[in-house]
Amino acid sequence: MAATLRHVAERAGVSVSTVSRAFSHPHLLAPQTVARVTAIAQEVGYVPNPLARGLITGTAANVGLIVPNLASRFFAELVKAAQARAREAGQGVLIAGTDGAAETEADAVRQFGPQVGGVILCSPRTTSARLKAMAADRPVVLVNRRVPGIPSVVVDTAAAVRAAVDLLADGGHRRVAYLPGPGKAWSDGERRRAVRERCAELGIEAVVLPEWEQAKGGHAGGVEAVPELLASGATAVVAFDDAIAAGVLTGLGDAGVAVPGRISVVGCDDMQALECRPRLTSITGRIGDAGRSAVELLLSLREGARGRSVRLPAELVVRESTGPRGAG
Amino acid sequence: MAATLRHVAERAGVSVSTVSRAFSHPHLLAPQTVARVTAIAQEVGYVPNPLARGLITGTAANVGLIVPNLASRFFAELVKAAQARAREAGQGVLIAGTDGAAETEADAVRQFGPQVGGVILCSPRTTSARLKAMAADRPVVLVNRRVPGIPSVVVDTAAAVRAAVDLLADGGHRRVAYLPGPGKAWSDGERRRAVRERCAELGIEAVVLPEWEQAKGGHAGGVEAVPELLASGATAVVAFDDAIAAGVLTGLGDAGVAVPGRISVVGCDDMQALECRPRLTSITGRIGDAGRSAVELLLSLREGARGRSVRLPAELVVRESTGPRGAG
Repeated sequence: MAATLRHVAERAGVSVSTVSRAFSHPHLLAPQTVARVTAIAQEVGYVPNPLARGLITGTAANVGLIVPNLASRFFAELVKAAQARAREAGQGVLIAGTDGAAETEADAVRQFGPQVGGVILCSPRTTSARLKAMAADRPVVLVNRRVPGIPSVVVDTAAAVRAAVDLLADGGHRRVAYLPGPGKAWSDGERRRAVRERCAELGIEAVVLPEWEQAKGGHAGGVEAVPELLASGATAVVAFDDAIAAGVLTGLGDAGVAVPGRISVVGCDDMQALECRPRLTSITGRIGDAGRSAVELLLSLREGARGRSVRLPAELVVRESTGPRGAG
Repeated sequence: MAATLRHVAERAGVSVSTVSRAFSHPHLLAPQTVARVTAIAQEVGYVPNPLARGLITGTAANVGLIVPNLASRFFAELVKAAQARAREAGQGVLIAGTDGAAETEADAVRQFGPQVGGVILCSPRTTSARLKAMAADRPVVLVNRRVPGIPSVVVDTAAAVRAAVDLLADGGHRRVAYLPGPGKAWSDGERRRAVRERCAELGIEAVVLPEWEQAKGGHAGGVEAVPELLASGATAVVAFDDAIAAGVLTGLGDAGVAVPGRISVVGCDDMQALECRPRLTSITGRIGDAGRSAVELLLSLREGARGRSVRLPAELVVRESTGPRGAG
């Protein structure tokens, strides 16, 4: 087996990214580190593979990153973390936003062309077959999406959503609404299923509220959903994300409905929980960690490592927007 | 004078980006459009310059974009619009976030290397001398920053900030506070000066509140500023941006202070005005237009056009968070 960056890193007692950087951006490291790494590379017969050579020549010294919506705080956080991690490895990030359109995703991958050595895809809606075709051409890592055979980083919010349902059931809630995000994202399906399944297991009722139009934005979607929520008879709602949950809080406030007295509200992704009044019970998504992990996974693929999938834990953080049924 | 893309576009009756695309991504256009454009290019003797040739070979078919904070909604909106405009021209966007550090900006420009044909810099804090050095090496367009000799796109929020002060003075306010953003951004200086100067012209008092730490984020900064605001004796506050203004509203709500009854609040950039209760009076920054204009300016520079500066108008939008002094 050919020596990889990882072998060199282990022997030198440094990180893989330090080894990578010793070849690509030696001026960023202490001279003695560069000397040790290059000596060990020679010793173990490390030869950069074509993609790794791209790192050195600069032809593939970029990570491609495709996200559905650059103006969403959630994806902006992911981009920011991925870009910071890539920079540590001496790489730039070539980014494209697709507005969730599968067509645009394929275009963006083609457009990156030889400028990127691999692509991180946050692709909530592209078909699995299409993703597999993309992954056949170049290293691909998926974020918050699982497709057999393609390495991925997934934040496991479903388990925390189940914990939220447990919290609500413990508080005496017997009917829990789920307010979806727009357009059938993969993670939306996971969260919806978690609410339904956990409610069924606990013998309480789940109600899935109608989707709203993506173009409105999450906050406006949440405001708009309030009449349906009130009509549903649910005393608690789990929203697809914090932006939507914040909109629900705003709409309930406008309607004079007490939170959590009459309706308890749970968000997801923990992007603006502390900006809400009452402060929002939410699920910490750690999307920054996911962005960093995705870059690491992609760099390791480019070094010839086998693909693997990373599952990051998520956690329910209970704040002020949830309480016992009928507390108000 | 050599023929430029613009000449070809005018003769062919199509946009500059269509001409650009006819050379770089002909498969995206109707075959008859490509045929007409290339025929006219031959006719007028259009020869792509080295950078434009890069467009065709793909070596410089990217726009570099540097923003201080990728996780801010304001810059995410700019990135999204720039990226959409670049895609129309068959270009990718290579993006870097710098957390506002001038060091990182220079690194990012170096790192883009030959992969970009020009750079759009949202550089609120880098020195003018440094920006000039960057612009000497390659086409550079600044956003919301003016440096003599470098083309720029500026959203003229200062005029709208003056209009906000007029509104407040008309409502009987005699002491107006300005709540700065962190770290002395160029646009912060513009807005601060506008408040001070307009107050002086109207014979009312301006108070500049202390800055807060950038790491906290705008909303938390706004919440934190509330005790100082109350202590200042001001009956109205203009905040550097909407995130900060939203935090002020939250903090005033926590303190039981009526808005606009006791304190009127004005935001800037209009990024989350409708999500606030009361709905925030704010200044529409049109940052999407700025992102698009910056890409167009950069593409025209790369086609050999002379640099120019674009000033986009901003507008005060009066909503519920402002009212006459002492209305409550």
